[in-house]
Amino acid sequence: MKVLIIGGVAGGASAAARLRRLDEQAEIVVLERSGYVSYANCGLPYYVGGVITDKEALTLQTPESFRRRFRIDVRVGHEATAIHPEQKTVEVRAGGETYEETYDKLILSPGARAVRPELPGIDDERIMTLRTVEDTFRIREYVERRRPRHATVVGGGFIGLEMAENLMEAGIPTTLLQRSAQVLPPLDYDMACQVHSYLRTRGLDLRLNTPIAGYEDAGDCLRVMLKEKPPLQTDLVLLAIGVEPDTQIARDAGLELGIKGSIVVNEYMETSLPDIYAVGDAVQVRHLVSGRPALISLAGPANKQGRIAADRICGREARYQGSQGSSVIKLFGMTAASTGLNEKSAQAAGIPYDKVVNFSTDHAGYYPGAANLTLKTLFDPESGRILGAQIVGFGGVDKRIDVLASAIREGLSAADLSELELAYAPPYSSARDPVNVAGFTMENLRSGLVRQFHWDQVDALRREDGVMLVDVRTPEEFRSGHIPGAVNIPLDELRDRLEEMDRSKTIYVNCHSGLRSYLACRILAGNGFDCAHLSGGYRFYAYVMS
Amino acid sequence: MKVLIIGGVAGGASAAARLRRLDEQAEIVVLERSGYVSYANCGLPYYVGGVITDKEALTLQTPESFRRRFRIDVRVGHEATAIHPEQKTVEVRAGGETYEETYDKLILSPGARAVRPELPGIDDERIMTLRTVEDTFRIREYVERRRPRHATVVGGGFIGLEMAENLMEAGIPTTLLQRSAQVLPPLDYDMACQVHSYLRTRGLDLRLNTPIAGYEDAGDCLRVMLKEKPPLQTDLVLLAIGVEPDTQIARDAGLELGIKGSIVVNEYMETSLPDIYAVGDAVQVRHLVSGRPALISLAGPANKQGRIAADRICGREARYQGSQGSSVIKLFGMTAASTGLNEKSAQAAGIPYDKVVNFSTDHAGYYPGAANLTLKTLFDPESGRILGAQIVGFGGVDKRIDVLASAIREGLSAADLSELELAYAPPYSSARDPVNVAGFTMENLRSGLVRQFHWDQVDALRREDGVMLVDVRTPEEFRSGHIPGAVNIPLDELRDRLEEMDRSKTIYVNCHSGLRSYLACRILAGNGFDCAHLSGGYRFYAYVMS
Ligand SMILES: Cc1cc2nc3c(=O)[nH]c(=O)nc-3n(C[C@H](O)[C@H](O)[C@H](O)COP(=O)(O)OP(=O)(O)OC[C@H]3O[C@@H](n4cnc5c(N)ncnc54)[C@H](O)[C@@H]3O)c2cc1C
Ligand SMILES: Cc1cc2nc3c(=O)[nH]c(=O)nc-3n(C[C@H](O)[C@H](O)[C@H](O)COP(=O)(O)OP(=O)(O)OC[C@H]3O[C@@H](n4cnc5c(N)ncnc54)[C@H](O)[C@@H]3O)c2cc1C
Ligand SMILES: CC(C)(COP(=O)(O)OP(=O)(O)OC[C@H]1O[C@@H](n2cnc3c(N)ncnc32)[C@H](O)[C@@H]1OP(=O)(O)O)[C@@H](O)C(=O)NCCC(=O)NCCS
Ligand SMILES: CC(C)(COP(=O)(O)OP(=O)(O)OC[C@H]1O[C@@H](n2cnc3c(N)ncnc32)[C@H](O)[C@@H]1OP(=O)(O)O)[C@@H](O)C(=O)NCCC(=O)NCCS
Repeated sequence: MKVLIIGGVAGGASAAARLRRLDEQAEIVVLERSGYVSYANCGLPYYVGGVITDKEALTLQTPESFRRRFRIDVRVGHEATAIHPEQKTVEVRAGGETYEETYDKLILSPGARAVRPELPGIDDERIMTLRTVEDTFRIREYVERRRPRHATVVGGGFIGLEMAENLMEAGIPTTLLQRSAQVLPPLDYDMACQVHSYLRTRGLDLRLNTPIAGYEDAGDCLRVMLKEKPPLQTDLVLLAIGVEPDTQIARDAGLELGIKGSIVVNEYMETSLPDIYAVGDAVQVRHLVSGRPALISLAGPANKQGRIAADRICGREARYQGSQGSSVIKLFGMTAASTGLNEKSAQAAGIPYDKVVNFSTDHAGYYPGAANLTLKTLFDPESGRILGAQIVGFGGVDKRIDVLASAIREGLSAADLSELELAYAPPYSSARDPVNVAGFTMENLRSGLVRQFHWDQVDALRREDGVMLVDVRTPEEFRSGHIPGAVNIPLDELRDRLEEMDRSKTIYVNCHSGLRSYLACRILAGNGFDCAHLSGGYRFYAYVMS
Repeated sequence: MKVLIIGGVAGGASAAARLRRLDEQAEIVVLERSGYVSYANCGLPYYVGGVITDKEALTLQTPESFRRRFRIDVRVGHEATAIHPEQKTVEVRAGGETYEETYDKLILSPGARAVRPELPGIDDERIMTLRTVEDTFRIREYVERRRPRHATVVGGGFIGLEMAENLMEAGIPTTLLQRSAQVLPPLDYDMACQVHSYLRTRGLDLRLNTPIAGYEDAGDCLRVMLKEKPPLQTDLVLLAIGVEPDTQIARDAGLELGIKGSIVVNEYMETSLPDIYAVGDAVQVRHLVSGRPALISLAGPANKQGRIAADRICGREARYQGSQGSSVIKLFGMTAASTGLNEKSAQAAGIPYDKVVNFSTDHAGYYPGAANLTLKTLFDPESGRILGAQIVGFGGVDKRIDVLASAIREGLSAADLSELELAYAPPYSSARDPVNVAGFTMENLRSGLVRQFHWDQVDALRREDGVMLVDVRTPEEFRSGHIPGAVNIPLDELRDRLEEMDRSKTIYVNCHSGLRSYLACRILAGNGFDCAHLSGGYRFYAYVMS
């Protein structure tokens, strides 16, 4: 059996290694257009920032090590230019020459490429993108040799933000331009607000709602032309506005394509044509939660899909169940993470949801170093099934997102989360882990113990009759900022001051995080009041409003 | 409704707070023998070590805050001395007086107390135990006032190890005496070996297999008499050889008791007598994995059980499904954690299991700060269901144990672990998380891709005919230590040196961690050899043998 693989990184290299382990006799050829295989795409920004200094650390395997260890024929600098499915051949271009390569099975793992919009001046060589090792060395060399006084990152997704951090790490004042109102699309706007404010405290010049009109060469610097705003002078532009599947040869070969030209595959990673498999960023997957077709460009799924393609080719049982988009990013000292659906994607898929916002310390508050994290969880109001989670914080964010990612994959409900027995000692967690508390909070809502309202309802409520806004924090907390129109009745005085509240009105309670307002609602409800509490508290509200 | 609660800490205080939230009208009385309620037992060792310095941080609530916020009548210094189930009363002693208190519902959360063995000299006041805030202040005061030149911790469980760390943190040279061959009973011996060697590098005088015969007052110091070894001079002994349920009043009242005098309860936390509930360290639980009765003294379960008892009393649906013993401990810079069954407990319960040992970096190796963790996973050979996991390492240990704890609770299999989509970025994980890799490893075993052998089989194998031991590491690695009798054939030369191996023999392969030996086995099997590889590699073997 001869297996030909196009693309030698996350999906392709994983498939190749697994194939060899399953079949010592197979002939395995990997074609890779760039000069490197098996490289750590995800580490590239850190090489630019000087956090990773060893060039060799950027590649996990080399063509030589693949040959030595796996007897795999890896050809870098070889680009597949056409697939002929009927003849089962692939046309390859290498160093000006072209040749044909045959296959019994073909695996496509060509990945995605950075989007370059058609804007005036876009071809300036100081406008760079980051995808390959070559791109990385080019940017790093530019940084070292030209010592830019200022850099501009365009796009606030993972790569844009990591590059902004690393350019600043390299000592370059950096501006990040984002067309929309928030960075990090996997987060909802309200969760991104804390990220915005943090990034600014770290010195990033973050400009939201700032679309670009074009670029102008201004001699020793570059002018970024903004719509309706004065232009920005910069020395280096890093373009990171998204990626699109790198699938021209798949299109030409007549493979069925999906979203943005991605390759359509079934759960066995088989394309629409026999003996051709496809994996990684180039394929359209089924979203695990919504069941909808989706593009999810992440290394974990690419690696797993590559392994599954190899298993199937060798006749083993294996099935890809879908992607859920579990992701995490370091932003200076902060961590942001998400998994499953957010509000935007749930709405787009027409999936009903409710949500809770919790604010917990990452470990016992009395043990040094505890820091708060904000956890937003989406769930199905009917069944309580968890649909998605987003976390922003400093410590322990990656842990909770992984527990929630596992919970979502296995279809757990809010009640299941409250029961999880997670490991506790003061340096690591609390006797009730934030994930348990999120479970409690959802169950309390679902069972009608409390009703909640959200930051985006506050303005309308203030204008309504029949409504009283009560803030149950301490007078000191209240003085340092509160919802306009709210009356301050500290929680511990509430039972003694019930007569100050109008029983004909609905009492809308808030505190700092949502805990005391929940307690207040239980007191009010136990005394015959109609009430609701502000999810996420004044803290969450204030981040969004500021 | 009047609810009386005995014990005002993890289980009792949780029940009290939840009760109030569910019923604004209930009369709630909490009796607490010690001078404090709602204290952070788990933080106490760190106060001794001076890591936590604020006394007030040790209590989450006070009698005053309970009254103010919850209208709960909390009585510290009040000990319940008898329960009269027929009259529904409890006898209480406080400050020399006694009185009777009635109840409609009674919740017992008396916890456990430190075991004090009957040994000569055991009543010396310099031999202390740690359970309450009073104990903590006593030890801390002794440390500050007497400045002990040397301390001895007896017992290598969680509390013993935390106290050893904290006594050393307070500047006191410390010896830890452990009767058995290992510390941390939730770990298997082989997993504990790395902990032993680490603790010694941190300066702890760790003496295993060292039972104590008694204690002698030697004037300005204390003599710890050891069996078959010279005595040890010390200034302070911290006794931490285990706890037993503090259930004398439950016994006297005729409640059904289980293991070590623990209170038998059903899944609703109901005892054998009507209207009496019990929770926390004092109760016998069902082990979630084995289904057997068990004692599991942990704060998370106590908190959850207290909440469930409150829910049941208020007529809500709630059920305790069982405990799995998820635990984690910080040991200086190291972290050890476990969940579910270990080999000892699986054997005791007669549950068939197989196991794998993996050795992974906690995050991408090329990103600064990556450190290795050792993960041992037990699974059901038949179904692949995960039965238990143990992890020892430096970073990311708590994260993986929580993912595995969730997996075990939901009955996931090895195959499910390989599919989990966990969040990956270089500072947090790898594209294949250690949990995924453990899943792969188990699935490869189960599907017959490879066979393995273990460190404790090596000696017998060396003496067998028909066996060849092959070490596939590099010559440098081999030279720095190897299994006696093993032949060195580096992995990358294996295919070219197949004729050096005897096809009539079974080839037992090892490498450093188990990865290369697995690759070697796939090469050997693909070339017609019968072979097996050493689980956990030479590294794991060497830790156990040293
Ligand atoms: C800067 C950066 C940071 C990232 N960080 C993270 C992260 O932190 N976490 C995460 O989960 N994911 C991250 N990703 C995404 C992750 O790297 C990808 O999801 C993953 O690499 C996709 O694997 P793949 O095999 O589909 O494509 P790739 O890994 O991109 O490999 C495709 C390869 O195919 C080659 N190729 C394409 N067409 C041809 C052709 N016709 N002939 C020959 N060769 C061809 C390309 O040169 C390329 O090397 C990051 C990506 C980048 C660029
Ligand atoms: C030093 C230490 C460190 C620990 N570290 C951890 C950890 O890191 N992680 C973890 O999960 N667990 C840890 N634990 C265990 C955890 O604290 C217990 O599992 C948990 O507190 C049990 O809750 P409980 O309510 O059953 O008992 P407790 O919290 O012990 O409360 C019982 C209370 O009842 C009182 N009482 C007993 N009898 C009577 C009576 N007759 N009348 C009135 N009052 C009575 C006692 O004075 C006591 O205050 C630790 C325990 C200790 C001592
Ligand atoms: C590294 C790469 C070549 C894959 O190679 P690989 O040999 O499959 O991966 P590893 O070296 O991690 O080996 C894993 C194998 O060892 C096995 N293994 C690991 N530890 C083991 C142990 N202790 N005992 C037994 N087997 C073990 C695993 O089960 C797996 O084998 P399997 O797939 O047959 O089940 C490929 O993933 C790659 O190129 N990665 C870099 C690119 C990339 O991922 N970029 C995006 C992220 S930065
Ligand atoms: C603290 C203690 C008194 C329990 O009090 P508690 O009021 O139940 O606990 P918390 O203050 O954490 O409040 C949790 C409640 O707020 C709710 N909550 C938390 N955050 C919320 C939010 N953002 N929105 C809505 N509700 C929220 C939770 O759901 C929970 O309510 P529920 O039980 O009715 O569902 C008790 O656990 C205790 O004494 N602990 C110390 C002793 C101990 O545990 N020792 C061992 C470990 S060191």
